[in-house]
Amino acid sequence: MLHSNLGINEQGHLTFAGQDTVDLAKRFGTALYLLDEERIRANCRRYRKALRENFSADSLPLYASKALSFTGIYRIMAEEGMGVDAVSCGEIYTALKADFPAERIYFHGNNKTDEDIRYAIDHQVGCFIVDNAEELRAISAYAGQKGITQKILVRLTPGIDPHTFAAVNTGKIDSQFGQPIETGQAAAFIREVLVTEHVQLLGYHCHIGSQIFDWVPFRDAAEIVLRFSAQIRDSLGFCAQVLNLGGGFGVRYVEADPPQPDVAAYISQLAQYMRSRCSELNLPLPTVLMEPGRSIVADAGLTLYTVGGVKTIEGYRSYVTVDGGMTDNPRYALYGSPYTVMLANRMNDKADFCCTVAGRCCESGALIQENVMLPRACRGDILAVAVTGAYNFSMASNYNRLCRPGIVMLKDGQANVVVRRQTFADLTACDL
Amino acid sequence: MLHSNLGINEQGHLTFAGQDTVDLAKRFGTALYLLDEERIRANCRRYRKALRENFSADSLPLYASKALSFTGIYRIMAEEGMGVDAVSCGEIYTALKADFPAERIYFHGNNKTDEDIRYAIDHQVGCFIVDNAEELRAISAYAGQKGITQKILVRLTPGIDPHTFAAVNTGKIDSQFGQPIETGQAAAFIREVLVTEHVQLLGYHCHIGSQIFDWVPFRDAAEIVLRFSAQIRDSLGFCAQVLNLGGGFGVRYVEADPPQPDVAAYISQLAQYMRSRCSELNLPLPTVLMEPGRSIVADAGLTLYTVGGVKTIEGYRSYVTVDGGMTDNPRYALYGSPYTVMLANRMNDKADFCCTVAGRCCESGALIQENVMLPRACRGDILAVAVTGAYNFSMASNYNRLCRPGIVMLKDGQANVVVRRQTFADLTACDL
Repeated sequence: MLHSNLGINEQGHLTFAGQDTVDLAKRFGTALYLLDEERIRANCRRYRKALRENFSADSLPLYASKALSFTGIYRIMAEEGMGVDAVSCGEIYTALKADFPAERIYFHGNNKTDEDIRYAIDHQVGCFIVDNAEELRAISAYAGQKGITQKILVRLTPGIDPHTFAAVNTGKIDSQFGQPIETGQAAAFIREVLVTEHVQLLGYHCHIGSQIFDWVPFRDAAEIVLRFSAQIRDSLGFCAQVLNLGGGFGVRYVEADPPQPDVAAYISQLAQYMRSRCSELNLPLPTVLMEPGRSIVADAGLTLYTVGGVKTIEGYRSYVTVDGGMTDNPRYALYGSPYTVMLANRMNDKADFCCTVAGRCCESGALIQENVMLPRACRGDILAVAVTGAYNFSMASNYNRLCRPGIVMLKDGQANVVVRRQTFADLTACDL
Repeated sequence: MLHSNLGINEQGHLTFAGQDTVDLAKRFGTALYLLDEERIRANCRRYRKALRENFSADSLPLYASKALSFTGIYRIMAEEGMGVDAVSCGEIYTALKADFPAERIYFHGNNKTDEDIRYAIDHQVGCFIVDNAEELRAISAYAGQKGITQKILVRLTPGIDPHTFAAVNTGKIDSQFGQPIETGQAAAFIREVLVTEHVQLLGYHCHIGSQIFDWVPFRDAAEIVLRFSAQIRDSLGFCAQVLNLGGGFGVRYVEADPPQPDVAAYISQLAQYMRSRCSELNLPLPTVLMEPGRSIVADAGLTLYTVGGVKTIEGYRSYVTVDGGMTDNPRYALYGSPYTVMLANRMNDKADFCCTVAGRCCESGALIQENVMLPRACRGDILAVAVTGAYNFSMASNYNRLCRPGIVMLKDGQANVVVRRQTFADLTACDL
């Protein structure tokens, strides 16, 4: 199986986190998101341990909560000693509702409004990751008004395309996020930061992309940022204490994906490289932060649907339709993302039926996956889509006025609703 | 201006439905959806009048409410004597909450669950548009249990690609929706329908696509379905009384789009053609239904944002970021849809600044539009995106835990909130 929390039981049913998914579908209804709590915690611990062992004791993974944000997830993050990367006051609000410590929240975003800045400072968010000059000035103004000094990191654009393995792909400099190093804008911006009152610059942030299965792009990013750090130290006398290397490693969605990255080994290799380079550049080894989101929750998630019907267009293809779709998982519609699809109630039947899995939205692009091999399905079968923990619930919509599915958390043989399914009344809650 | 409800006032501000958009942004905050009630009503009346004048008195446009669904819109549809095309029980629920008459609701969808079918029959929805055999059998079973006969139309796939103007593009037969005529599956399905108890077949439905600016694809679709109707009459003795021709005509999003379709003239041409063909085929002229959604609400909508900053990546491009994005308008991320963007507070300034308008989501694809010409913007400017009445609010998500904007309805100089802006508490309403 793709991940070790997937299995098949004696009834030929798919199991997830040790529980029978067909039973869960019956008990909680479909469409339904499942989460494997132990997997979430294990994923956190892998990053926590690797960063602590290889860098300074205050080095920390920040859970990138845009991947999956609801109150309960921040409770787990608090218990696991994680930090949190929040991209909006909605995420900050949700984290604080779960009593997540504000000082471990890092506030991201390319467009923080004055209202956002007030909210985050009022709630004593630990650190802003500053994207641009307008934001810097607004933070300084409000921090001054409140009589505080706000800790910040500055987001840099290192100009790396991790998927081509080009050391510097200038195309990646063309981004709405951060300050580009290559053009000199980043250095000019740091100059402004250092003379701005009411902010304290701790160091730098960069994010080179997602679904990276190798450590080399992180090494390249660290190299560029360390060199930038040395240059700023030499020219402006500022020495960064913190380096935030952005998103975590890739996650396997399908069998054709590369092997699962060895987080411990990769972070150890990265640390060796950085220690050596810091020594050569005469820099102190910084506190290292990372922002895994997908790699904390993706493989801890699974979605269950009920099949509504099968339609074979003779000479073309067959469609299997389910009671969900682009509303609960827009990633195929948005990016053509690959997913592993299974018939959960008939895992031992021969998967010899090539089909397209379509959702129930009235839109031709509302597909979940094309060209998948399943046993010949029929109305009432339970269909499972694996590795849906990240960017599914968080990107869900009520398009077609479909209610958002609930989330059931699985742990030690127990199954608890942590987010209830929306009702029709929820759909009209804001209608006046 | 692109549509007649857009204008510029003495302050050089964009007006919409006669009101100053900069004032509205100040009063209600941004991001904000605006709707022009008179435009919605005028769009309804155009279809109502054309169908009534050219076909039988019971011919009717059905508002395709997936384009924009909230309680108040169904009140307008009831007042305008429209029918409603609903694609889920969430839409039916919302329509009934607005006291929309159930008998004028047509229930669509390629995957109606048993629960959906029970809900719609219990609430006496007028007509099901039946997609497939599994649905037909489930309707029959529940209608039998309730002791009623459910009126239905059958959705056909006529095999037309309206954008290539190919009379029959077989690719379009490859759809998850309806029963294909060409393969013989539609005829076989009608045979099953006619021997199924507890359902009454009224006629046929087809939908050939959206953004069609000409009447010819509708003529071609009507031709194919009329020939099918004659064939079924000859082979099975059933004569269709109703023909539902699906979605309405196209809407101009940008100046480069074709001229706005003349609904009255196109429907008149279509009626002449159909009358002549029905006579030749010895068929009665059917009651004609259409399902305009986009062409009822799109040009009645406008979205307002506040600019957060401008970032020029030297040698690459400039980004203008706003306080919304793919969460309130995912159509550029999904389809690369073109939109007309304006700087609402500086309409008379020279638009000589080429930029990409980026949203505030932490995702590189979260753009609203690329390569637009604006006056050089700065933090605090008000940016307007026109023609956002359709598939914006209805497709909105809470990605990045951003609150969904409210909708303000404009009429006769009045501005009323018809859907309130979500609060942080709404975001966690389902969290347990």
